[in-house]
Amino acid sequence: MILERYAIGVDLGGTNLRIATYKEDSSPNGMIADSIGLPTRVKDGPDAVADDMSGAIRKLLSKHGHGGFAGLGIGTPGPLDLPDGVLRNPPNLPGFDGYNLRRAVELRVGVPAIIESDANLAALAEFRLGSGKTYGAQSLCMLTLGTGVGNGIILDGKVWNGHNGMGGEAGHNTVDPEGEPCPCGSRGCLELYASATGLKRMAKDSRGSHANDSDESAILTARHIAESATAGDHAALAVFARVGTALGIGVGALVNTLNLPLYVIGGGMSASWDLFALQMMEELRMRSYVYRMNAPTEEESRVRSPRKTHVVRAELGSDAGILGACLLPLMQGRSG
Amino acid sequence: MILERYAIGVDLGGTNLRIATYKEDSSPNGMIADSIGLPTRVKDGPDAVADDMSGAIRKLLSKHGHGGFAGLGIGTPGPLDLPDGVLRNPPNLPGFDGYNLRRAVELRVGVPAIIESDANLAALAEFRLGSGKTYGAQSLCMLTLGTGVGNGIILDGKVWNGHNGMGGEAGHNTVDPEGEPCPCGSRGCLELYASATGLKRMAKDSRGSHANDSDESAILTARHIAESATAGDHAALAVFARVGTALGIGVGALVNTLNLPLYVIGGGMSASWDLFALQMMEELRMRSYVYRMNAPTEEESRVRSPRKTHVVRAELGSDAGILGACLLPLMQGRSG
Repeated sequence: MILERYAIGVDLGGTNLRIATYKEDSSPNGMIADSIGLPTRVKDGPDAVADDMSGAIRKLLSKHGHGGFAGLGIGTPGPLDLPDGVLRNPPNLPGFDGYNLRRAVELRVGVPAIIESDANLAALAEFRLGSGKTYGAQSLCMLTLGTGVGNGIILDGKVWNGHNGMGGEAGHNTVDPEGEPCPCGSRGCLELYASATGLKRMAKDSRGSHANDSDESAILTARHIAESATAGDHAALAVFARVGTALGIGVGALVNTLNLPLYVIGGGMSASWDLFALQMMEELRMRSYVYRMNAPTEEESRVRSPRKTHVVRAELGSDAGILGACLLPLMQGRSG
Repeated sequence: MILERYAIGVDLGGTNLRIATYKEDSSPNGMIADSIGLPTRVKDGPDAVADDMSGAIRKLLSKHGHGGFAGLGIGTPGPLDLPDGVLRNPPNLPGFDGYNLRRAVELRVGVPAIIESDANLAALAEFRLGSGKTYGAQSLCMLTLGTGVGNGIILDGKVWNGHNGMGGEAGHNTVDPEGEPCPCGSRGCLELYASATGLKRMAKDSRGSHANDSDESAILTARHIAESATAGDHAALAVFARVGTALGIGVGALVNTLNLPLYVIGGGMSASWDLFALQMMEELRMRSYVYRMNAPTEEESRVRSPRKTHVVRAELGSDAGILGACLLPLMQGRSG
């Protein structure tokens, strides 16, 4: 009997914490099993969160045993200082700056852990199990449009971490030099126009001072604005056009710089693909002559020509991050 | 007696054509020997240029012999379609679109050639013999500020070509979405503000309609504007400040995306480093929190701390392109 290998993955968010197992030989689309969901007790500090996380990991470990255990992968909001695995000022995890989450979990659980930013893990999962697989791409660049804009880059099959773990922060590339101020300290970052938070702000601005100022979450508001746009509301459509313009400028620079075969748009906002994609592609064509020279015809899109540059919607949904966390130790185990 | 290995390199520009030899064991800073300079006969068509180039290569080959010959490297203006080596719409070489320069030279000379874009070769030379060596960096990103803005990216010791040879075109990344129209079809590209051509245009704009409309070359004009700025001319200083702002935005996005240890500014315009560097670094600090988190202190700059992100002036001068062309076959020979 061959022992089935499995990995444990962790997805640490500012609100929710998920721990799950993933079996190497499960369905081609990547099946997560035994998912444990917990609230992230940010207010109780990083040690409390590490305690919760480690408790759930131990539970899964004792259930599935150490025999086929391939490793533990942890995804956290970036940026991370690698190879140490120290969190650096994560905006959604106040109080975690300088915290060595990897070591904290390793000490509690007694197994080695690999840590990586959630956007990089989403890109890795999309590369191995989603559009990367569909297109047979060796490299891709993914933008995850959620409350912020995450970015993960896979070059020649591996996550590009940069020299100390902070690569793939294109969500903070400038798309409008004189634009809105960003909490990162700059102005006019891509994230301010292509995230749920940005969508909420732009919709509020376009409705003027009579805006609905309720404290509903950006994600919920983004859904409402998408519904209005789908129903033909001009203001809502204009806001999504601005999302497309910002993405076209941002993706254009990534195409000019990296010339990859595949650019992937994921995250919750990508559900509204039909509301921004046309504008995004039009802007991209204008902004990037490298894209224009490599833009697929309709037929080349259909057959997924490997010589062309494809810009597509992510195939994996909200499980991409935790799937990537599980893939990380399985891939390391394979090459080691 | 050990036979000294040598390579032949070609630097094909829109105006000048240079062919030279380079000995592997020459001085640490990379000595070019036996340089042959010719005008580029663009008007006579690509075959005439290939004839001139091949004649000079044969001359050098017969002088130095086939014994120690390591190979032939050719640098051309980008973009190139790789691995075929076909030129794609090079703006400074009208009539060369679709021309397979590599094959044309191989047929004429009878030895295999490697072809690469000039900006990538400058980056490679800077990596092996210039600032990359000084800083012990494994990766770097270089912007070459000439009549345009070239870009070359070295990742883990190798030129990043992208999936079909068009990587490293960050000179056409947008730094001002509503900015000047660019011949590439976009608006507000970095190249429009950080090249000699851009400097000339901005200086003319700032002097209004009374501007000197002589047809002196952009390079010459850039030198005059630099002299005025050095002498304290406010308008000229303001133009260089705009160069710095554009570079800060452009480099900021490259730092956020790639997180490399080293960013290098080269090309003729980099002689005016003192006139734009302050503004560039200030803008970069504001634009990129990834840079701020990795910015070296004065002491860390002095000791070239490998954990930090350094933005520096290129060490090699105008020989960088042809040096890179020579290094290409020598590096291939080494790893092969």
